[in-house]
Amino acid sequence: MSQCLHQVAGPVWNLGRLNHVAIAVPDLGKAAAFYKDVLGAQVSEAVPLPEHGVSVVFVDLGNTKVELLHPLGKDSPIAGFLQKNKAGGMHHICIEVDNIKAALMDLKNKRIRSLSDEAKIGAHGKPVVFLHPKDCGGVLVELEEA
Amino acid sequence: MSQCLHQVAGPVWNLGRLNHVAIAVPDLGKAAAFYKDVLGAQVSEAVPLPEHGVSVVFVDLGNTKVELLHPLGKDSPIAGFLQKNKAGGMHHICIEVDNIKAALMDLKNKRIRSLSDEAKIGAHGKPVVFLHPKDCGGVLVELEEA
Repeated sequence: MSQCLHQVAGPVWNLGRLNHVAIAVPDLGKAAAFYKDVLGAQVSEAVPLPEHGVSVVFVDLGNTKVELLHPLGKDSPIAGFLQKNKAGGMHHICIEVDNIKAALMDLKNKRIRSLSDEAKIGAHGKPVVFLHPKDCGGVLVELEEA
Repeated sequence: MSQCLHQVAGPVWNLGRLNHVAIAVPDLGKAAAFYKDVLGAQVSEAVPLPEHGVSVVFVDLGNTKVELLHPLGKDSPIAGFLQKNKAGGMHHICIEVDNIKAALMDLKNKRIRSLSDEAKIGAHGKPVVFLHPKDCGGVLVELEEA
């Protein structure tokens, strides 16, 4: 009952738009060339993000982005994924929220596990948190405060 | 040389926005409840599409959609995927194009394989074609004429 009241009384948060679909790729240049030269999308230069253990190429699709991720340095968070999926593959989706602390508190009450206790600053310089794929229908879901 | 001229002289096509991210799920009701009740997204009723061998729930994220797919009938195109990914997972991304015949011709010239020789009518009643994941960085890419 107290949990129920807490949920009702908790701070409000709202889900926003799809920020990006992240794809882990074994060859960043080849993947970027596919989106740029084959499909004709607008594609950024490769951006090294050593604090996140990835290099990223942003593919602009107008309404949202595809982010191509390649491991950078030791202990990259996507190294294991690429070992299991050698050709690359879809790694996670990122959905925006307007209040990540409130979202995290509410999701905890709803028994959705997150991969960290608190939000951290993500690749876009904004607070993010990853939710456990087992609680999200097999999909790694990132929430980003926008 | 003739191939190069053909590409230059071929009909023009342009890539558009991300139409949807498709997620194959083992339990459609449970997955829909996650997006609706846990995340607070707008979610459709389940729509049976027997001609495509799936039931679909559309999750509206404002700028684009997540489509939750569950096998329907025998020979569902996602049955094999769910056998390999029992918890579910991201199945494909769909990007819009303005001229799917021109896109298909151009992609064929660029040695990108498609899963069918011609576009077929997809789940939204519009022409679609799937490109081979091995030619698209490990990701199954659907093109839809919008």
